[in-house]
Amino acid sequence: MKPSGEAAAAAAPGAGPWDECFEAAVQLALRAGQIIRKALTEEKRVSTKTSAADLVTETDHLVENLIISELRKRFPSHRFIAEEAAASGAKCVLTRSPTWIIDPIDGTCNFVHRFPTVAVSIGFAVHQELEFGVIYHCTEERLYTGRRGRGAFCNSQRLQVSRETDLSKALVLTEIGPKRDPATLKLFLSNMERLLHAKAHGVRVIGSSTLALCHLASGAADAYYQFGLHCWDLAAATVIIREAGGIVMDTSGGPLDLMSCRVVAAGTREMAMLIAQALQTINYGRDDEK
Amino acid sequence: MKPSGEAAAAAAPGAGPWDECFEAAVQLALRAGQIIRKALTEEKRVSTKTSAADLVTETDHLVENLIISELRKRFPSHRFIAEEAAASGAKCVLTRSPTWIIDPIDGTCNFVHRFPTVAVSIGFAVHQELEFGVIYHCTEERLYTGRRGRGAFCNSQRLQVSRETDLSKALVLTEIGPKRDPATLKLFLSNMERLLHAKAHGVRVIGSSTLALCHLASGAADAYYQFGLHCWDLAAATVIIREAGGIVMDTSGGPLDLMSCRVVAAGTREMAMLIAQALQTINYGRDDEK
Repeated sequence: MKPSGEAAAAAAPGAGPWDECFEAAVQLALRAGQIIRKALTEEKRVSTKTSAADLVTETDHLVENLIISELRKRFPSHRFIAEEAAASGAKCVLTRSPTWIIDPIDGTCNFVHRFPTVAVSIGFAVHQELEFGVIYHCTEERLYTGRRGRGAFCNSQRLQVSRETDLSKALVLTEIGPKRDPATLKLFLSNMERLLHAKAHGVRVIGSSTLALCHLASGAADAYYQFGLHCWDLAAATVIIREAGGIVMDTSGGPLDLMSCRVVAAGTREMAMLIAQALQTINYGRDDEK
Repeated sequence: MKPSGEAAAAAAPGAGPWDECFEAAVQLALRAGQIIRKALTEEKRVSTKTSAADLVTETDHLVENLIISELRKRFPSHRFIAEEAAASGAKCVLTRSPTWIIDPIDGTCNFVHRFPTVAVSIGFAVHQELEFGVIYHCTEERLYTGRRGRGAFCNSQRLQVSRETDLSKALVLTEIGPKRDPATLKLFLSNMERLLHAKAHGVRVIGSSTLALCHLASGAADAYYQFGLHCWDLAAATVIIREAGGIVMDTSGGPLDLMSCRVVAAGTREMAMLIAQALQTINYGRDDEK
């Protein structure tokens, strides 16, 4: 079944204070997805941000501008944190105001190569608490949504995380991160080695943090960790995972800090703690200190 | 558009000597895919083969038995090489007879976790030459086909590999392989490190060799390498990649040896050679000496 705004809304009955915002997010994610699907058939002009792995395209800018301009028209008092604006120097500060946290194309490197694992991610926080998340897998036309207290869904199907607590039976997802200096790569590979030594069934790297987190929410993987992701990769997915019964925490084992550029997520607290204990820290700084 | 036998046949017009076999492969791949999709919604009984990562399920056996028994009825003189039969001790020898080379579920670890990257792979060789390959991505309902001299297709769309020759602009796919002893893991991670040092845009690990090779055939990635895959992972995909204009070779840079448990594939010979030169060998023995 293809996603629609109506379907997503129907999946979470009962009116809430942010329903209009949620519905706007769904509609804009679907519209952005159409633009991205069309762009996947065209030649791309690509720029490099911090490294060969950190790419940006015209479509990233186009989609981000579309989403923000539409939301600003409807909700003029709201604030925005978004990937390309941040790359251009805008500050990432989460105040108590209603704030949209947006990644126009998660998986830009995949997008550049037409590797079909690409998503739009729109999260929404009020009083520094995440209210809802909307993630649209553009090529597979899967719409993931989560609203605080109202469950998580993929199209109309309710999501439920895995209940696995044994690392030796786990499928673990991660991403390489944008830094590619030798010391960072050593740490990244060493973390992967630790999990494989612990006899995890497998480690997968699909090139989209957001969609990897959606796989976790749907129970198709048992854990996720990453150093070097940003608040716009995490915001929407965090609501979806929590509403699917899962855990999102800091790699230290403490509470999630959305601005800390690192995360462990899992179906169970036991699994999240096992992953956190296995990891060596890779320092990527903070989103709110850049 | 959903795949059908008719669509695949229509995509490669003109009668050939193995058309009936090709059509049978398409029909059986689609039928197997239905069984696998249904099984993805059910509880699984899982056994371990060589390591925690090397799993087999009842569905692997069920699907393999279905495919072989149907083909044996229609083509009683043909020979078979298949994953679960090989695991039970059947010899993998490619003679000059018409031979079917079958992986009933590629991505069994994904299948066990309901991670939606799972395929059926059916290759066919005559006089030790690969004639056609049929690969069905069960959850996305994508049917990849390639017939010697007649092109490669996904559903009805013609496939074309990437023309990239610069490793620093490449998206590279690989798989971890079933051996997880410390020495093998070190080599696996060291190979990944070498490609990331060479500034490849990214490395992806999706948990299905066959589907990774299909991404290569469709131009969504620039190169693939692996140690520890088997002839049934490679046979069908090799035809599809070659018919999409790509290269499949040994990791030494020499000609592909289907039984050697190792491969480099790329859109261009230049890219394949760059990958081959970067790799350290991991010894997995040979399929025809087990």
